[in-house]
Amino acid sequence: MAINDIDIPAAARRVAPFVHRTPTLVCGGIDRAVGRAVYFKCENLQKTGAFKARGAANALRSLPAALAAKGVITHSSGNHAAALGYAAAALEVSCHAVIPADAPAVKRDAAARYGAVIHGCAPGMAAREEMARQLIARHGYTLIHPYDDAAVVSGQGTATAELLAQAPPLDAIVLPIGGGGLISGAAMAIGQATTAAAAATQTTPALIGAEPAAVSEAAQSLKQGRRLPATGGETIADGLRAGVGELNYEIIRRYVERIIVVGEDQITQAMAMVWRRMKLVIEPSVALAALFADELPADYRRVGVILTGGNVDLGRVFGGDG
Amino acid sequence: MAINDIDIPAAARRVAPFVHRTPTLVCGGIDRAVGRAVYFKCENLQKTGAFKARGAANALRSLPAALAAKGVITHSSGNHAAALGYAAAALEVSCHAVIPADAPAVKRDAAARYGAVIHGCAPGMAAREEMARQLIARHGYTLIHPYDDAAVVSGQGTATAELLAQAPPLDAIVLPIGGGGLISGAAMAIGQATTAAAAATQTTPALIGAEPAAVSEAAQSLKQGRRLPATGGETIADGLRAGVGELNYEIIRRYVERIIVVGEDQITQAMAMVWRRMKLVIEPSVALAALFADELPADYRRVGVILTGGNVDLGRVFGGDG
Repeated sequence: MAINDIDIPAAARRVAPFVHRTPTLVCGGIDRAVGRAVYFKCENLQKTGAFKARGAANALRSLPAALAAKGVITHSSGNHAAALGYAAAALEVSCHAVIPADAPAVKRDAAARYGAVIHGCAPGMAAREEMARQLIARHGYTLIHPYDDAAVVSGQGTATAELLAQAPPLDAIVLPIGGGGLISGAAMAIGQATTAAAAATQTTPALIGAEPAAVSEAAQSLKQGRRLPATGGETIADGLRAGVGELNYEIIRRYVERIIVVGEDQITQAMAMVWRRMKLVIEPSVALAALFADELPADYRRVGVILTGGNVDLGRVFGGDG
Repeated sequence: MAINDIDIPAAARRVAPFVHRTPTLVCGGIDRAVGRAVYFKCENLQKTGAFKARGAANALRSLPAALAAKGVITHSSGNHAAALGYAAAALEVSCHAVIPADAPAVKRDAAARYGAVIHGCAPGMAAREEMARQLIARHGYTLIHPYDDAAVVSGQGTATAELLAQAPPLDAIVLPIGGGGLISGAAMAIGQATTAAAAATQTTPALIGAEPAAVSEAAQSLKQGRRLPATGGETIADGLRAGVGELNYEIIRRYVERIIVVGEDQITQAMAMVWRRMKLVIEPSVALAALFADELPADYRRVGVILTGGNVDLGRVFGGDG
């Protein structure tokens, strides 16, 4: 498991039959509000409602048949579990997911609906990892880590590879950091641009991270020069509570220009802006919130953003659970 | 103002610089729930958040310069007003909108934001029409009717023309009926298919209407053989409260195979399904609700639907107004 194992073009070929080439959309109203041209890669419209389908599909298609026959397992806040369930069902692999009791019901239910067998556990990473360890020891499952895995990172990188091909030359790409799978895949995608169109642009977009202030361990890690564990903080962007991975931190440290930290109100406002102006149901958008921050250089005129998922709990809109 | 004045191909050329060619999307989960293949034309992603931008743009571009110089006016539940404001601003025509006090704030505000001068009035069609008459007498504005107008119908018909070109051959197209602008445009579009792709299919989709039970005056009119006025009923699909227009009724009577009437719960459930499964913010979908009704023949396997708009009040989701 090393940076050299990350291969975005190979992942793009592997995942193509299982994921959508999602559209990249623009919105004049948001451009005016932000004061930049923003290109939104719509992974909320991805299979399973999140970019995680890419990493899961690539990881499963990269798995030796003897291991796949025993089944796979994950501990995840939900989108990765749904993605793995989806990809496993498509490839006829059995799939298990350890999901903490405090995960949103909509995410747990989605994982189950896509075919994952759910194993509930206490909140917190320690409890998740312990239960996964026990199940692996007993049944021989292969753990598919949600981000600290070269095959998963390669799969997630295909989202950025497509964005580079779909948008005009970008000055920057702004991505959220939870475990760091999406942004480390993006760093490698920028370096391994898969299309003639992207190669022809001769520009290398700056890679910018975005984190909620409550769980900004990647930003803190860069400042202190060493990888810090998850803070355990609470944020509306619940998919970002994981600590940054080891492989991911190594890539972030090398290739991410800076990490912008945003507040909860900014995150909610950015999400609401996309619902209202773009008519897209998205999860809280830390990346769009970062576009309003002073730290983003003014000369980054054309900016790419990935709308990472759309699995929000609509219970308070429509009643019922999820 | 007659059926012979409706020209969809000409409207398509006129509106092209002002509207999006919106995507037609599919959703496996909804297909399984409905038991048919459904092709969703996403007019919620249209300029101004609704298909009405098409009719407004075509009407304004069809207006003689001497009339355009005096300005235009409308009375509308909101989406048409926003659309007219948008198209008028793009064409440098002044625009006035008479909007009743009980219209959703999000729609009134959108009309104002797009540049329409808002004139408030009492609820009900009579009050709207009276205030519009007074303003026209005083200022010489041209009334752009929201649906009972050949140019508006022609513009709305471009949505169906695009759907025919984007989807595979369809067995049926199911559309909501309020004033009847969308569905009468669709009837003419089916007859005037604008693309080689559509012409090559050699199939003529059946045209099916859908109405909320509370405001089903089009269905009642067909039954009684004469055009009935608006019922004044209340429905969550507030854009459909208008009575069916004269020109529109004439077309519906000739070309619409049947009208399916659906309940409020079915409408809300259909809307929630699109939010949850397709991650699209849409207004209540009477058309999708109708796909669950027993009246839709089982051999209509491939069905086109237009998601007509996305201008919903998100105040109860995010707080604030709209």
